[in-house]
Amino acid sequence: MICIKIGIISIGNEIVKGRTINTNASDISNFLTNLGYEISYILACRDIKEDIGDSLEFLFHKCDIIITTGGLGPTVDDITVESIALNLKLELVLNEYAYSEILKKLTERGMEFTPERLKMAIMPVGAEILYNTIGTAPGMILKYNGKVIFSIPGVPSEMRAMLPEISRILGPSGMEYYSLEYDVKGLLESKIASYVKELIKKYNYEMLIKTHPESRETQNRKVTIEIYGYGKSRKRLEELAQQIKQEIDSIILNKL
Amino acid sequence: MICIKIGIISIGNEIVKGRTINTNASDISNFLTNLGYEISYILACRDIKEDIGDSLEFLFHKCDIIITTGGLGPTVDDITVESIALNLKLELVLNEYAYSEILKKLTERGMEFTPERLKMAIMPVGAEILYNTIGTAPGMILKYNGKVIFSIPGVPSEMRAMLPEISRILGPSGMEYYSLEYDVKGLLESKIASYVKELIKKYNYEMLIKTHPESRETQNRKVTIEIYGYGKSRKRLEELAQQIKQEIDSIILNKL
Repeated sequence: MICIKIGIISIGNEIVKGRTINTNASDISNFLTNLGYEISYILACRDIKEDIGDSLEFLFHKCDIIITTGGLGPTVDDITVESIALNLKLELVLNEYAYSEILKKLTERGMEFTPERLKMAIMPVGAEILYNTIGTAPGMILKYNGKVIFSIPGVPSEMRAMLPEISRILGPSGMEYYSLEYDVKGLLESKIASYVKELIKKYNYEMLIKTHPESRETQNRKVTIEIYGYGKSRKRLEELAQQIKQEIDSIILNKL
Repeated sequence: MICIKIGIISIGNEIVKGRTINTNASDISNFLTNLGYEISYILACRDIKEDIGDSLEFLFHKCDIIITTGGLGPTVDDITVESIALNLKLELVLNEYAYSEILKKLTERGMEFTPERLKMAIMPVGAEILYNTIGTAPGMILKYNGKVIFSIPGVPSEMRAMLPEISRILGPSGMEYYSLEYDVKGLLESKIASYVKELIKKYNYEMLIKTHPESRETQNRKVTIEIYGYGKSRKRLEELAQQIKQEIDSIILNKL
C-alpha cells in the first residue's frame, strides 16, 4: 500500500558514540509518519566521508527519499554535502542561492564571510537549497536517479524548522496514519501473544498490534498496547482500532 | 588505532516510526565507548525479516561485532533470531540452555510453557545464550565467520542488565576513551572553526575537537566544546585535553 520509502541518516560522532540521544531522527520520523509516510530505516554514522557514503549507498538501494541531518555547518567535521557529492560522483560548485542567503544573514548580523562560512554554500551541481529560518547553514535538496536527498542541519531547532518545507515538497502521501495506545496493568505480554497474532490475521493486517512491556517483566507489570496502521481513510482506521481494542479488552477480561 | 568495529541494530517499528526515542542504542554505545571500544554505525529497522537481514548484511561488511536489540520476546513481531538465522542460512533448533532457563523462570513464577514462550528458546545452531537476569527471554551470542553477533532484549532494563556480560565476553579493548566538555557562552562556532581545524592538526589527530551549538545560533549563543579521543594511556589523554582546552581558551580570549 505504501509506496514511498523514506530513510534517515543522522551524521555525527556524538550520536554514534552515545553522547547525544538521537531525538532528531525520532522527531523527523514522527512528523512524517503522522503525515502518512513510512520510514524504513534510521542510520547513524560518524563524521567520516566513507561512512557517510556507505550509509547513503545502503539507503539508496532501499528508499526513495533520504533525509540526512547534521554536518552542514562551518566546522572541519561538517562534511555531509562533500561526502554525498563524492559518493554520487557529482561536482561541487558554489551554489548562488546558498551564497546569497548566507551573505544576507552574515550582513544582517554584522559577521564576516570567512572561508569556513563560504563552505556552507558549496553544493553539488543541481542542488537546491532549503531555507534555514533560524541558523546560517542552508539545507540542501538533491534529486538524483529518481531519488531525492534532503540534507538538513543537526541543531534540533534548525532541523525542526525545515520539516514543514520538506513535507510541502514531498506533497501529500495519500495515506493516513492512525495509532491508538493504552496501558494495561498487571498484564504479561506473553499471556496475550497468541490472541494478538490471531487478531492481526483476523483484521487482514490492516492494523498492527504491538505490546510494549515496561519496567521489570514480573514486577509492577504494565503493558502498553498499541494498535496502528496506514490506510486511505482515517475514519476507517479509527473504527478498526476501536473494534480491535474491544476484542483485546474482552480477551483480557474473559480468557486470562 | 582502534581495531574492533562495533555496529548496533535497534529492531522495532516503534523506533523507526518515531514513537520511541532510541535510548537503547545510545546506552549501549555510551557504555562501550567508555570502555575504549568504538561504535561505527547505529541502525534502526522495522520488524520485517528482510529489513533485519539487510541491516545485518550491511553491518557484516563494516563491523566485527554486531549488537541487536529488540525482537526477542514471545509476540508475533519478535522475529530477530529467526531473521538472523534466515539471513545467515543457519538452521534453527531448540537451544537446550535457553529452554531450561525459560522453563526455570516460568516454573518459579507459576507460568505456563506456551508455544509463544517456547519460541524464545529456538536459536540458530551453535548459538549460546546470554542470561536475562530480569525478564524471561534469553539473549543470544552467535559467532559466525569471525564476527560475533549479540542479540539482547529491547526492554531497557533487560538490555542494560546484559551489557556487563557483553563487555566481559569482549574482554578489554586495550584502549582508553576520554572526553572533556565545557560550555562557552556568547560564542559562535564559526568564529573558532578555523582555529579548531588547526588545533586538531597540531595535535596530530590524537584528540578530536567538536563544537556543539545550542538553541538559536544567534540568540542566547552557547557552544559546548568537546575534546575527546582514544589512546593507550588515560593520563596522556587527560593531559592532552587540558592542553587543548588552554589553547582554545586563549584563542577565545585573545583572538575573538
